[in-house]
This record gives sequence, C-alpha cells and structure tokens, in this order.
Amino acid sequence: MQEYGTKAREMDEQDALAGFRKAFGTVLDEVIYLDGNSLGPLPRKTLLMLDHKVREEWGQGMIRSWNKGWFDLPLRLGRKLAPLIGAGEDEVIFCDSVTVNFMKLVAAVIQRDPHRTRIVTDDLNFPSNFYALDGLLKGSGNGREVLYLESPDGIELPADLFRDAITQDTALVTVSHVAFKSGYLHDLEAICEIAHSKGALVLADLSHSVGALPIHLNEWGVDLAVGCSYKYLNGGPGAPAFVFVRKELLEELPQVLTGWMGCADPFGFSRTYSPAAGMRRFLVGTPPILSLQAIEPGLDLLLEAGLEPLRRKAVQLSEFLLEMYEDWLQPLGFTLGSPLSPERRGSHLSFRHPEAYRINKAMIEPRNGVPPVVPDFRKPDNLRLGMAPLYLRFHDIYRAVQRVVAIVESREFEYFSHDGPTVT
Amino acid sequence: MQEYGTKAREMDEQDALAGFRKAFGTVLDEVIYLDGNSLGPLPRKTLLMLDHKVREEWGQGMIRSWNKGWFDLPLRLGRKLAPLIGAGEDEVIFCDSVTVNFMKLVAAVIQRDPHRTRIVTDDLNFPSNFYALDGLLKGSGNGREVLYLESPDGIELPADLFRDAITQDTALVTVSHVAFKSGYLHDLEAICEIAHSKGALVLADLSHSVGALPIHLNEWGVDLAVGCSYKYLNGGPGAPAFVFVRKELLEELPQVLTGWMGCADPFGFSRTYSPAAGMRRFLVGTPPILSLQAIEPGLDLLLEAGLEPLRRKAVQLSEFLLEMYEDWLQPLGFTLGSPLSPERRGSHLSFRHPEAYRINKAMIEPRNGVPPVVPDFRKPDNLRLGMAPLYLRFHDIYRAVQRVVAIVESREFEYFSHDGPTVT
Repeated sequence: MQEYGTKAREMDEQDALAGFRKAFGTVLDEVIYLDGNSLGPLPRKTLLMLDHKVREEWGQGMIRSWNKGWFDLPLRLGRKLAPLIGAGEDEVIFCDSVTVNFMKLVAAVIQRDPHRTRIVTDDLNFPSNFYALDGLLKGSGNGREVLYLESPDGIELPADLFRDAITQDTALVTVSHVAFKSGYLHDLEAICEIAHSKGALVLADLSHSVGALPIHLNEWGVDLAVGCSYKYLNGGPGAPAFVFVRKELLEELPQVLTGWMGCADPFGFSRTYSPAAGMRRFLVGTPPILSLQAIEPGLDLLLEAGLEPLRRKAVQLSEFLLEMYEDWLQPLGFTLGSPLSPERRGSHLSFRHPEAYRINKAMIEPRNGVPPVVPDFRKPDNLRLGMAPLYLRFHDIYRAVQRVVAIVESREFEYFSHDGPTVT
Repeated sequence: MQEYGTKAREMDEQDALAGFRKAFGTVLDEVIYLDGNSLGPLPRKTLLMLDHKVREEWGQGMIRSWNKGWFDLPLRLGRKLAPLIGAGEDEVIFCDSVTVNFMKLVAAVIQRDPHRTRIVTDDLNFPSNFYALDGLLKGSGNGREVLYLESPDGIELPADLFRDAITQDTALVTVSHVAFKSGYLHDLEAICEIAHSKGALVLADLSHSVGALPIHLNEWGVDLAVGCSYKYLNGGPGAPAFVFVRKELLEELPQVLTGWMGCADPFGFSRTYSPAAGMRRFLVGTPPILSLQAIEPGLDLLLEAGLEPLRRKAVQLSEFLLEMYEDWLQPLGFTLGSPLSPERRGSHLSFRHPEAYRINKAMIEPRNGVPPVVPDFRKPDNLRLGMAPLYLRFHDIYRAVQRVVAIVESREFEYFSHDGPTVT
C-alpha cells in the first residue's frame, strides 16, 4: 500500500488548488473529513464575518439593518451563485429549505396546466422530494399521479429511460442532478430535450452537484431548480437553499405558497397578494438572516477556485480512490455502489459492504494517532465518501482507505454495536 | 413636560425588572429603541454563545454535531417556549417561518374535513396570513372561501362579532392574537368557545403577543398556533418561528407539506412518508441551525423575568405613554390608533398623524445629543411604538415623546422626504 502514499504526496504537491485548504483552519488536519457532501466545513472567514455582522448589524443597527443589506441579501447571494450554476443573475434567490422551495415550484407547475396530470421522477431522487410530491398531490384532487422510474441496477438511470415515461400528460420531470446515494450524474441536457419535446418542464435538485462540478442550467435548457447550500457550498448547518427559475418562465408560473416577503409591496399591507417583480416572489416569510449571511464566504471561495479546476481535481481524487478500492477494498468484500465512469458520477462514491454501518462507526473513532475519518453511512449498506475538491488532499484519501483496511482486516468494527443514530 | 421626566425617573427606580436591561449591553443607551415589537435587540449572551457554538459545533464537530444537539434543537427550544404560551412540553416545535408554518396548519385543516368550506378571519390579521390562505385555497378547488370580518373602527374587533360568521361550514377561525397595526388583543378564549360550538378549529398567530404577555393556549382551548421569535423573544433577524398543535388534535391532522426531516425515519429513505411521532412531523427540510441557536438566550431571559411581571410593566409603560399622549401629542394632531383600555391591547401602541411618515424619519436621525429614537411606521399614517418591558425604561418613553414634540413643534420633519423605504 506504501506506493499509494508516495503517489498521494506527489499529487498533493502538483495540486494547484492546495492553497484553499488553509481557508478552513486546522480542523481538517485533525479529522479526515469525507462528508463535505453532507455538511461542508466552516470557512475561517465565516466565523469572523458572522461575529462581526451579529455585533454590528443586529447588535448596533437593529431594525435599521433591514435597509442596509438584509432586505437585499437573498437576491444578492443569488446573483453570486448564478455563475456557479450557469444561470442569469436575476434567476436565483436564496430562501427556505430545499424541500419547501421544491414545493413552491411543484405547486406552481401543477396550477399552471391542470390538464397535465403526470409528474415523472426516478427512484434515485432524494426521498424528501417524493414526500413533497405526495403531500401536494394528495390535496390537489384531479387524478394526478407520480410515475417513479426504476434504475435497473439501483446505481444509474440513463436519460433514454425517460423517453417512454414522458407523455403529453406530463407536467413535470424532476430528478436529483447527482443521486444522493449512488452519486449518479444525470444528463440534464438530454432529459430536458426529451421533456420539452412533450411540453413538460424539468425541475432539477442540485443539492449534490452545486459547488462540486460546473452546472450550465441555461445552456442545458433546465426550467426550474432548487439546491442546498450546506454541502459543497459550505454555507453552514441547515443554511437556506436556493431557487432557480428560467427567466422566460417566471411570469407563467402562478404563485401558490404566497407570503408577505414575496409580495410586490410587503409594507403596503394590502389584503390581496401581487407578486414582487422577479425572483423575490419566491420569498414567503422573513428569511433567517444569520444563517443566510453564513453562506457568502463559501461562495467566494468557490468563485475564486473556479468550478472547472475543482471538477478536474474531484475526478482525480475519485479515480485515485477507485484505484485503491480495486487493490485493497474489493478483496475485503466491498463492492462499488456508484457509476464506474467519472462522466456519469458526481463528487461522492458509495462502497457497499455488509458491515458498512459498523465500519463507518469505527472510522469515526480516533485511534492511536490516526485521526477520526468521517464518512457517512446510507442504508442499507453504503459507506459514502465525499471527494470535496476544495480542501481534500490525496493523502487524506490514502489515509482513509488505509484506516478502512485496518478496521476490516483486524475486525475492529466488531467492537461497535449495530444500533444507534445514523445521522452522519 | 418636566414633571413627566421626574415621574419617569421615579418609576424606573421602582422597576423590579430594571436589571434585565443590562443583558442587552450598551446599545439601548445609544438608541431609544421602540421597535422591539418588530425586531428585538441582541442579548449579549447570544453573541458570545453563537461565536462559541459556530466555532465548536460547526467548526470542530462538523457533521457529528447533528447527534450532539442539532437534531433535537427544534424540539428542545419548543419545550423551553411551552410555559411562555401555556402549552404542553410536547406541543411546540421551532422551524421555518411564521407564514410557512401557518400554511402547514391551514393545509392540514383543509384536508381534515373537506365538507367545511369556510375559513373565517378578520381584517386586523397580518396580511401574510391572507396571502397564505388565498394561495392555498386557490389550488384546493371545492368552492372554499375566506370570510373577512371587518373591524368597525379599524382598531378593535370584539369576539361577539365572530358569532354570526362562524357556521357549521366553518373549518377554521384564524386571528392574530395581537393585531400588528392597532395592537388590539383578541379574546382567544371567547373566540374558541364560539368556534368550538360550531365544530370549527381556532388557529392563533401569536407573533405580536408571545413574550410580551401571559398566554394560556391550553386553558383557553386554542387548537393551533404559530408565532414569531424575532420580536419580543429577541431571537434575531428572521429567526425560525414556532408551531403549536393541541395534543389531542395531532393524530387527526393530515400532513400536507411533508419533508424528510418530519418523517418517522429520515435516514430510512423509504419512498413513502410516515409522520414522525409528536411535533417533529412539522419539520419539512433541514432547519437553519445558526438562526435556531440564536433563539435560546432570549427565551432564558423571559423565563427568568416571568411574563406576569413583564405584562404589568408593559401596561405601566403604555399607560405612562398614554398620559403623555393626552397632554402633549393629542394637541399636536395625533390620534390614538390603538384600544384605550389596556385589557384590550398588546404591548405596542399606534398613533396616527398625517405626517407620521416624516416624523418617523426625523425621529430615527440622531440630533445634538439626543440619541436616535427608533419607532416604526405602518401605512397610511401610524407611528407604532413598542413597549417591550424587558429592557425599556420609563425615561426612554419620556425622551421619545419629548423628541416627537420637538420634531412636530419645530416642523423639523419637513426636512425629510416623503419617499424612501419603509422597512423599519
């Protein structure tokens, strides 16, 4: 295994993005953190900025700070995100959670054309989106249905399989751009082409792709999108999500989840709602300012690094991990739960093992000079490893695999129970 | 006017709650802050706690902090709030915004009994609730309607007026406990009695009452409630709101806005949703942890001070303000836009004046040793003054009125324009 250590050192020396690691302080030397696909680490600048802003803006400015930046913050952050997802500056806003934003868009699409009764999705999509669809459709009457496409192998789902499912009755096709479990990367451009040929709209959940790879929503023809800011965007636990609506579609979308912060004149207090101009209409209530503010430094880091170099490094990290998997993990009973080809994969990899849950628990424990290795576990047997290119070193991957091998070879995982929480 | 200054000093000396002011640092000596009913000031402890928690929990713990407090936080804060609203410990949760929470409850009530097609509210209610109702009903088909009761004077709306409006067709009666503009305090117990006699449920928006006066939801028979944590709870700008559901009602309420954080096993990732036990089912997406954490120190302060003493002081502050109003403001053209009797009033007072907008602007400007006085303005002509009892001094009220008198007598407000933002 030694030769992988040497190779890792060499690749780290050639890594043009290596300098970004220090933006996260020293914690990444104390923990080998392979869960940036679930919760990104804290940028040092975020800590300092938050303390300053809480002190100055809430502490000193109090209510007056609404006119000095808070009111514009959801749109200002949207403008900053736009180039990272290939959107126009006026097509994005930050607010609420991914699922609430998903509901806003689905509810709008349902009302837009009551004659289209079908919504198409696939079983690789994040289940919160299923729950949102079910909840909204239950109340909408009208014989609406959700069609779930099944991935043949539970890992991939080629765009061609959407062809028969999308009919003239289809209002919406909705997928996770990168599947939360397998990491499969949907070909959004191909899905849009198929959907649009039948007059259906496409809504993409970018939670597991945004910040990890270049996204070209407008170029691909994506109509609607939502996404998460606490994974590769490093925006902090539960940080508000974002909504994207293709500009030409905005005026066609009836608003359903309507609240005062999204109306044309929030302080006019009229009895009836008229939508604000532009994306502001997707606000509902007052946005959580502290959690919103924490998003900005992470966006700045990504803009500085650039998504093309980040993607290149993420692929290198993943390919390096796969080499080690073939040499060291496969012989120990691991199988690959992700696409083999990097073109069909996002930035995380799942490895399946009957003892994945207990191996995951053993990895998190620090042990004799080996720092904790933090992966996550996804039922039933997936050890999910995130290759966040902004701060991970090749040597981190090397040490993580070394640790997994030691845990399985020594059967150290047997000291851990099968029970307990799985929130990692 | 001098005698009011002397009286204010005397009342401040007798104020048993005076010590709580220092929990907010020195800013309240630099600004006379009469807008705690819109955004409460920053408790010093919140600043220190947030910095510590961001550093330790996000910075060091990263994803592992979900199992060390974050996952339980929405319910833990709910248990803390419960005694302040007369709820059981298992009847409250913090999440999302007031309006999104209002939507969850209204959507559930609509589905619960499709034969009840009427929702009754009144024109003193906060307009975001109107927008939420309109949006949800537009999509629900079924000939549902919202009946808006009109306040005879735009200030008060006695519970008796609900009697004719609530029929056997009524699913829900919903009011703002304290009206955002006039400060009218609804008699929730009386409204519940009328509504329940026809089988309708009552949903109260506590945004302008919570933390300012004792609330006894269970004693009064209130079925459902939502409320805001950034006003008298001092939870920070846009801090997450809360949801209350009377325990016996929980299992009868179908969930409509369903997301993964509210399902029985969020990490089971099953295709279909089953609600979590208890109030956790009202979570949708991942809650914004930083903004949630900021809520706790403010709750602790209120629990320590006690709502009965706080309410007594708030009434004293308001009555003192009304005395000065009669002597000094009425002669300058102000009229009272709030109920005269303290029993029918929350903790803020509105004063109407044709030049209220420009007077409000002049007050906010610091001037020759007089600190800025921060009220807020509500269209068309309301100067709204919040009497937050936790930190205001009688002398603050005295100085504020003195400043208003100076502005109107000298016509200083004429130097300010009629335009500009009204977000205060």
